[in-house]
Amino acid sequence: MKAIWLENQQLQLRTDAPIPEPQPGEALVRVVCAGICNTDLELLKGYYPYTGILGHEFVGIVEQGSEELIGQRVVGEINAACGECRFCVTGQPTHCENRSVLGIVNRNGAFAEYLTLPIKNLHLVPESITTEKATFTEPLAAALEIQQQVQVRPDDRVLVVGDGKLGQLVAQTLALTGCDLLVVGRHQEKLANLAKRGIKTNFVEAVTERAYDLSVECTGNPEGFAIALRALRPRGTLVLKSTYSGQLTFDASSLVVDEITLIGSRCGSFPPALNLLATGQVDVEPLIQARYPLGEGLAAFDHAQKRGVLKVLLEMPT
Amino acid sequence: MKAIWLENQQLQLRTDAPIPEPQPGEALVRVVCAGICNTDLELLKGYYPYTGILGHEFVGIVEQGSEELIGQRVVGEINAACGECRFCVTGQPTHCENRSVLGIVNRNGAFAEYLTLPIKNLHLVPESITTEKATFTEPLAAALEIQQQVQVRPDDRVLVVGDGKLGQLVAQTLALTGCDLLVVGRHQEKLANLAKRGIKTNFVEAVTERAYDLSVECTGNPEGFAIALRALRPRGTLVLKSTYSGQLTFDASSLVVDEITLIGSRCGSFPPALNLLATGQVDVEPLIQARYPLGEGLAAFDHAQKRGVLKVLLEMPT
Ligand SMILES: [Zn+2]
Ligand SMILES: [Zn+2]
Ligand SMILES: [Zn+2]
Ligand SMILES: [Zn+2]
Repeated sequence: MKAIWLENQQLQLRTDAPIPEPQPGEALVRVVCAGICNTDLELLKGYYPYTGILGHEFVGIVEQGSEELIGQRVVGEINAACGECRFCVTGQPTHCENRSVLGIVNRNGAFAEYLTLPIKNLHLVPESITTEKATFTEPLAAALEIQQQVQVRPDDRVLVVGDGKLGQLVAQTLALTGCDLLVVGRHQEKLANLAKRGIKTNFVEAVTERAYDLSVECTGNPEGFAIALRALRPRGTLVLKSTYSGQLTFDASSLVVDEITLIGSRCGSFPPALNLLATGQVDVEPLIQARYPLGEGLAAFDHAQKRGVLKVLLEMPT
Repeated sequence: MKAIWLENQQLQLRTDAPIPEPQPGEALVRVVCAGICNTDLELLKGYYPYTGILGHEFVGIVEQGSEELIGQRVVGEINAACGECRFCVTGQPTHCENRSVLGIVNRNGAFAEYLTLPIKNLHLVPESITTEKATFTEPLAAALEIQQQVQVRPDDRVLVVGDGKLGQLVAQTLALTGCDLLVVGRHQEKLANLAKRGIKTNFVEAVTERAYDLSVECTGNPEGFAIALRALRPRGTLVLKSTYSGQLTFDASSLVVDEITLIGSRCGSFPPALNLLATGQVDVEPLIQARYPLGEGLAAFDHAQKRGVLKVLLEMPT
């Protein structure tokens, strides 16, 4: 089958990749749409060693493994857990010690004609959500993980640093809390996407220091982190939502003196994300900037890497 | 009066320091005992610019300013707050934007014959607590701030990194929660202090990685931070309890992937600390390693700076 393969920080379009064999408890899923994420771009830069098929944001049709789901449109949680380790037995499968992660750790991903995942990872896509929109379920779930970890109060002052793919979703979900939200970035067009939805936006230079209860870092660079940290009032909380290619450095004494909380945030659960897509409370349509067939996957990556580009989709028409 | 004065990272024993004049709402306190803290040593190293009388851990007798308290033995909260800023009006005076801090920021400290503090900062010392023990009220309150910020569950696995002055108090207060506690350090004799109280101790090399729910960094050095971070399970919490002279660097991606929480922790409230001293549930006696009269304050500092030394007290006999 066709697949986008990463090896030694080189991408290639393979046509000879074997169709994966579902293991017991797994389903075989035919991918129909997949999204390129910043994590894919980071993997390509080598931030984490991975060899295999990339891709973890997808919608597919189940072809084997589950009577109930065959022929149905699904999305899939990306962490395949062992079910037995201390995290699995305490209801934290995303932190399973023996996990593989679709297109990220030890498991071939979604930029291919087929993938396999445990059946329990799959969620039916409601009819009301288009396939393209449903492709955003995974990153939207990751955005919602913030509210799973931190109580966002309606009268909190909240800052989102970054107007990229992740910042756009985080901003839309945080706006639903009614909080006093500001999103800062560097791209007029991207900020305009959010302004259209009534969200306050500005350039990063406009951030008031020591003013925010909560800041969310969505840029993945040290400068964004520094802005998010300086923006916090004493006893404020900074959520780190991006993966970083390097080390971060900060003034630990000011963290102690101001009793700041720093919290790392990764994957979230899918049902709330599907709810918000189904009701249209989050609109992902304006984030889609290009569509490529799987066979032009390398061109799709070139496009996704351009400065200022939001979501690029890979589509596998039937 | 006599006072230990810091200027340009030089300590001097002054004998000509003016007795401070209490402002409206303030009391004049005659200091009878004061403790040298790591923060004093850090100020001496220049981690924060300060010129004036050092010292913030003390017991004194009120001489002026409050009818009710005159002649009474008191301890005092070190943050003198404005009462009007956004933090004061929301019940967070330790984060007052206009605060002065006894012996640390814009307010002469306790290594002197007299000090002034707002009357509302003072707390009566119960008869059952000796003056030497009551001198530990401030650092003990700072240790208890951890439980104010983080829920410590009885079945949590908790690691304290550091067997120094602060680590000793943090370990004793955390042990009261019944949690599964390990304290690691580098000094056999200091660890023995805790082992005598039934607290598990070991050398830092013995820490199991990815095992603890909560770790508390009490060393103030980057190595201690790295140990505390590596010890955490995914979704664990690291409390930074020390001030640091420099920057800290960490692997931000692993913080995100493991959804770690980092939280800075500073001053706490005095009444619970006084309770624990009064009931003897925390024993500070073994921490006292030397006593000097104020007039030998420079020798006291030399002693406190020696490797492996716990608390050195300055005493001002009547
Ligand atoms: Zn992603
Ligand atoms: Zn597991
Ligand atoms: Zn102190
Ligand atoms: Zn204030």
